[in-house]
Amino acid sequence: MKIFNQIKLDKESSSQHLYIQLYKALKDMILEGTLKKGDRLPPIRKLSDFLEVNNVTVVSAYRILEEEGLVYKRIGSGTYVAADSYEKESIKNYSQELMEDDYNQAPMIDQGHIQLEEDMINFASATPSPNLFPVDDFKKVLNEVLDRDKGLAFGYQESQGYYPLRVALKEYISIYDIHTEENNIQIISGAQQGIDIIAKGMLNYGDYVLIESPSYTGAMAVFQSRGAKIIDIPLEDDGLNLESLEKKIITYQPKFLYIMPNFQNPTGISYSLQKKSKIIKIAEKYNLLIVEDDYLSDLNFYADDNKTLKSLDKNDLVIYIKSFSKIFMPGLRLGFLVVPKALSEEVLMAKHATDISTSGLLQRALQLYLQKGIWKQHIRYMEEQYRERFEIMTKCIVEFMPENVEYTLPKGGVNFWLKLPDGLSSKELYEIAVKENIVFAPGNLFFLNNKNTSYFRLSMAAVDNKEIEYGIKKLSSLINNLLKPKNKGYIQPNQYTPIL
Amino acid sequence: MKIFNQIKLDKESSSQHLYIQLYKALKDMILEGTLKKGDRLPPIRKLSDFLEVNNVTVVSAYRILEEEGLVYKRIGSGTYVAADSYEKESIKNYSQELMEDDYNQAPMIDQGHIQLEEDMINFASATPSPNLFPVDDFKKVLNEVLDRDKGLAFGYQESQGYYPLRVALKEYISIYDIHTEENNIQIISGAQQGIDIIAKGMLNYGDYVLIESPSYTGAMAVFQSRGAKIIDIPLEDDGLNLESLEKKIITYQPKFLYIMPNFQNPTGISYSLQKKSKIIKIAEKYNLLIVEDDYLSDLNFYADDNKTLKSLDKNDLVIYIKSFSKIFMPGLRLGFLVVPKALSEEVLMAKHATDISTSGLLQRALQLYLQKGIWKQHIRYMEEQYRERFEIMTKCIVEFMPENVEYTLPKGGVNFWLKLPDGLSSKELYEIAVKENIVFAPGNLFFLNNKNTSYFRLSMAAVDNKEIEYGIKKLSSLINNLLKPKNKGYIQPNQYTPIL
Repeated sequence: MKIFNQIKLDKESSSQHLYIQLYKALKDMILEGTLKKGDRLPPIRKLSDFLEVNNVTVVSAYRILEEEGLVYKRIGSGTYVAADSYEKESIKNYSQELMEDDYNQAPMIDQGHIQLEEDMINFASATPSPNLFPVDDFKKVLNEVLDRDKGLAFGYQESQGYYPLRVALKEYISIYDIHTEENNIQIISGAQQGIDIIAKGMLNYGDYVLIESPSYTGAMAVFQSRGAKIIDIPLEDDGLNLESLEKKIITYQPKFLYIMPNFQNPTGISYSLQKKSKIIKIAEKYNLLIVEDDYLSDLNFYADDNKTLKSLDKNDLVIYIKSFSKIFMPGLRLGFLVVPKALSEEVLMAKHATDISTSGLLQRALQLYLQKGIWKQHIRYMEEQYRERFEIMTKCIVEFMPENVEYTLPKGGVNFWLKLPDGLSSKELYEIAVKENIVFAPGNLFFLNNKNTSYFRLSMAAVDNKEIEYGIKKLSSLINNLLKPKNKGYIQPNQYTPIL
Repeated sequence: MKIFNQIKLDKESSSQHLYIQLYKALKDMILEGTLKKGDRLPPIRKLSDFLEVNNVTVVSAYRILEEEGLVYKRIGSGTYVAADSYEKESIKNYSQELMEDDYNQAPMIDQGHIQLEEDMINFASATPSPNLFPVDDFKKVLNEVLDRDKGLAFGYQESQGYYPLRVALKEYISIYDIHTEENNIQIISGAQQGIDIIAKGMLNYGDYVLIESPSYTGAMAVFQSRGAKIIDIPLEDDGLNLESLEKKIITYQPKFLYIMPNFQNPTGISYSLQKKSKIIKIAEKYNLLIVEDDYLSDLNFYADDNKTLKSLDKNDLVIYIKSFSKIFMPGLRLGFLVVPKALSEEVLMAKHATDISTSGLLQRALQLYLQKGIWKQHIRYMEEQYRERFEIMTKCIVEFMPENVEYTLPKGGVNFWLKLPDGLSSKELYEIAVKENIVFAPGNLFFLNNKNTSYFRLSMAAVDNKEIEYGIKKLSSLINNLLKPKNKGYIQPNQYTPIL
């Protein structure tokens, strides 16, 4: 730590934030060569203790260094100096801007966007950590596409999507018993865009939409943005409450029902096959459209059945959204829809008005990746990785969580849904946990009107085995602390809301 | 042509379209090796004459082969066999699907999406032909990014955009006298998405929006989709009619004004500096927000001034949209916004709800591309290419267009806006021109309610010098034919609409 003695921070300065000062000091050390490529930076807490500053100051400084490519993180290991001399040359001129700059981000936690900091144990993210991505294989296909297609790979792609990719996807989903035509497949820039263009194509101001309660925040945001009225239906252990569903269809005549029947987000619930069939029958009876968000059915460990609703849909009433973000690479921004024939034109128009088309280069690369069969290897690899985590996560929750924390263990997917004892708020637990460098998703994010609840979601996608054990133990002890009478001081009764 | 004798088409078949039959026959010839890598396929018309089928049949067959990567086009030269043996192996299994498939696309011309066929002279597209793209340079930066960032390049990127890219863009626009902070820059997946998320962030059902008349179709589609009411304001040779603008601001209290002050689309008009300044003053007077779509100000040849409104905006009333599609590569789907501070949160939320984030890989590659300064070389190259076309285009229009065709020559950009003699419809000219393998954009696309007009837009972005001369001559003779009394039969009076 001695070399860090040279860092002088002006703690009285009102003109320059401490983290900007620290960022600049560290950057100077890198550019001067005091810190060399491959050197490990001190852990957050160690440096903050040493400099007598807040954790967040160090976290923010490290983040800017990382964004500039000067340092990089290794999950579970720390932060390392990355820049070589070439890069050093080229980034010197960033300093000027940052001097006057705040580099704040809008606080987005209430929209389901949780701010992550270095070294945090991340139970909040449902997407895999970057070290699981098949980077080398994908680099190969990218280069093959560039050599083969040249400029064509950078032209506008058809709005519906690159034809050979649609053909390949048609084959891919036939394994999951979904049989369709290339013409019914619409390429999208990720599942969120899928929800957005379906809403654009179908929802007018004042229309009703049915959702599960709880549901995915990003979908609610889209429906609200269209001026639609959202009606939620309680989830049971085997899926939607059907009586409530039918009643609400009759009352509201909704444009569609938005659901995730396999390893639901956030609850992890799997709909029973019986319930899936009944929902299809109800849809037929009322001519109800269903938007099925299949973000993760591939990751089945113990469910007897992970059939999609689309595979049961004989009357073309299901719009199927498939995301690759959770099992492949989120940053590709690629996914697809299977669209009922009657809606294909509306959806295509909506896609065109949204962003003309999805990147042709990435579509072509994914097509080649699928064609070469590397996809299957990758899915198997992800399954192995996740299965181990899934079992450790299950074991730790069962073993360490206080007895009065309730949960139903999922049979697949990456999400675990837990409930604090009545009277405790998961938002409060969140705030305490963040100070211990643990993040998760408080339950209020997943309910209409952002209600404060005792529920919370733990995801295993971005944590390794060690982090799982440490994190669950830590969370359990934080919950136990909250439950102790002497700590009742934390709890202000007006922060609670009745729990659904 | 002899080898094409082996193609047998069943013209009586009702179960299989002719173009599918032809596609399969040609594909077999490629797979069998009768047609080899590098062989040129016959020109459309030659093969259609030879086989006694419609041009469109051949065009459609060639398109499917191209989409499968079996053949590729060289602009102005023809269609060549592309597949090597590896690819042949892998694509065999497409045939099955195509047998039962129609491969139709939704007819999108009325939404501004014009169907292009092989060998057509394309005055419709305002985006450069793929042979102008800096593919090799971009491939290099892509690979550098992958080696440097590995999995990080495929993770979710911050919704606002990759920080170093925002820094680079901030510098880039300072050349154009726009001075802002990284925090006010929002990365978008192309200008169309920019319009979409601005609308999402700002427009509610029933709000008013002002636009130029004529204007960009894709923007109108977005505003309409939000349930907004669009009010159009006539364009004069030096920009908007200011009297009408002020009157409509007072009457409708619009949420914003959407304009393209430099080389406007579709008219090519450049606003005078005086008019730009007056518009800024009007905006200040009424606290009016302006959405400035800068799709092409970079391409100035003869305008005294190509200042953006944003550079004149002292009160943070202009939302600036910058597209790279027209001067760089449309298929990247990258652009950015400069957002007034007061709106930054709304815009960021809207981006998040739209697609979470833009591809991090492509953002990182663009950042490196900008950083290395290759960008400047590329812009210079594009300028040279376009300047030559611009001059040939100008010369040909002046020389060959019939006297009673009206136009104001643009001073930059890629679009030329012309008006047929009263009583002639550009949609009708379009239909005749397509048969001669020439496409352009009929004027009705750019007016509210898709009104049929005598205006039309010719773009020079995707045509080479030869095509320009041949195309303008041909169009001129088609117009002359339409004007001849004996051809009056084409014109049905009820197809005309009063021209604005």
